[in-house]
Amino acid sequence: MTATGRTPGRRPGGPDTRGEIVRAARESFADKGFAATSIRAVARQAGVDAALVHHYFDSKDELFIEAMALPLDPRQVAAAILNGSREDLGRRIVTVFLGVWESDEGQQRMKAMLRSVVTSDDVARIMREGMTRMILEPVSQFIDLPDAKLRVGLIASHLIGMALTRYVVELEPVASADLDQLVDRIGPAIQQYVSG
Amino acid sequence: MTATGRTPGRRPGGPDTRGEIVRAARESFADKGFAATSIRAVARQAGVDAALVHHYFDSKDELFIEAMALPLDPRQVAAAILNGSREDLGRRIVTVFLGVWESDEGQQRMKAMLRSVVTSDDVARIMREGMTRMILEPVSQFIDLPDAKLRVGLIASHLIGMALTRYVVELEPVASADLDQLVDRIGPAIQQYVSG
Repeated sequence: MTATGRTPGRRPGGPDTRGEIVRAARESFADKGFAATSIRAVARQAGVDAALVHHYFDSKDELFIEAMALPLDPRQVAAAILNGSREDLGRRIVTVFLGVWESDEGQQRMKAMLRSVVTSDDVARIMREGMTRMILEPVSQFIDLPDAKLRVGLIASHLIGMALTRYVVELEPVASADLDQLVDRIGPAIQQYVSG
Repeated sequence: MTATGRTPGRRPGGPDTRGEIVRAARESFADKGFAATSIRAVARQAGVDAALVHHYFDSKDELFIEAMALPLDPRQVAAAILNGSREDLGRRIVTVFLGVWESDEGQQRMKAMLRSVVTSDDVARIMREGMTRMILEPVSQFIDLPDAKLRVGLIASHLIGMALTRYVVELEPVASADLDQLVDRIGPAIQQYVSG
C-alpha cells in the first residue's frame, strides 16, 4: 500500500501516500489529459492499489480538484449557477464567479492558477478539460440553444478576462469597482449570451 | 552620441544606438511607468542626446510601441474602432481586435505579450498605462456616458479573455469558431456596454 519508488525523486511511501496519489494524478492529467486518465492508471502510477485511491477520493473529479489545488469544487460552482431562473442567470453567473475570487484564499490560488494556465500548455489543457466537464457542459445544457457551447465559452472568456484585468493587471476602474457595480454592469452582457 | 556603458551588459554604442534607446525606454517604463518616463530621461539613460531620440522616435508613444514590440500601433487601432457609427461600435471593436490577432505575426507577438502581462507586474503596469492612454481613453470619450471608463474596461476584459480562451487556452468551440460567428456573437455583448 506504499509507493514503490519507481519514479525518481518520489518520496518513500507511507505517511504521504495521499500526496503520492495526487502527484501521480497530476502527472497523468498532464500527460494524457483528463478524459484518458483513470483511477486505475493513477493507482498504478502511484504504486498503490486502486481501492486505496478510492479510499481517499470518491471520483476522478475529486482527484482533479485536489491535483489542481482548486480553492473550491467546480461542481458546487455549477450547482450555484444553475440554482435559479434563466432570467437571472447572467447576474447569478457573475455573482458566483466573483465570490470564488473575492475570498482572500480564493484570490491567491485563482491568480496562481490563471498564471499557470497562461504559461503552461499542460495546465491549460487539464483546466480546459476539467472546467468544460464540470461547469461549461452543465451550463450549456441549461441554456439549451443550438450554439450553447459557443455562448458558454464566450461567457467563460468574459469572466476569465474580467478576473485578469481586475486581479492580475489591476486595470482601473475595473480593479476597484465594488461587487454590486460589477454585477450590475456585467450581468446584462452575460444575460445577452444566455438569451436566445 | 554613443552609449556610455554605465549599465552592465550594455553593448558598445554606435551601430545599435537605436537599440540602446529602446532598451533604456523599456527600463524606464518598467521602473517609473509610462507617465513619468520622458524622452529626456530616456536619452540620459541611453547616454545619448535627446535630439537623437527624437530623430528615431517622434513621440513617447512610438517609443512605447517599439519597446513593447507591439505588432501594430494602438493609435491606429483606436482610430479604426472610432471610425463609424455608435450603433455599430460593438461589432467594429470585435472586428478590429480580431484583426490584430488573426495575422500570423500578430498572433505570435500578441500571445507573447499576453503571457508577459500575466506573469510580470512590470509589463502589466506598462501595458495598462499605454493601452489606457492610447485606446481605452479615446474610446471612453467616444462612448461619453457617466461610467464610460468602467464600461470600456469591461469591454477590454472581454476581448482579452476571448483572446486568452481562443488563442492560448484553445477552449472549444471558441478556438475554432470562424470570425463572422465571433463578431455576430460577441458584437451584441460589447454593444450592450456602449449603449446607455
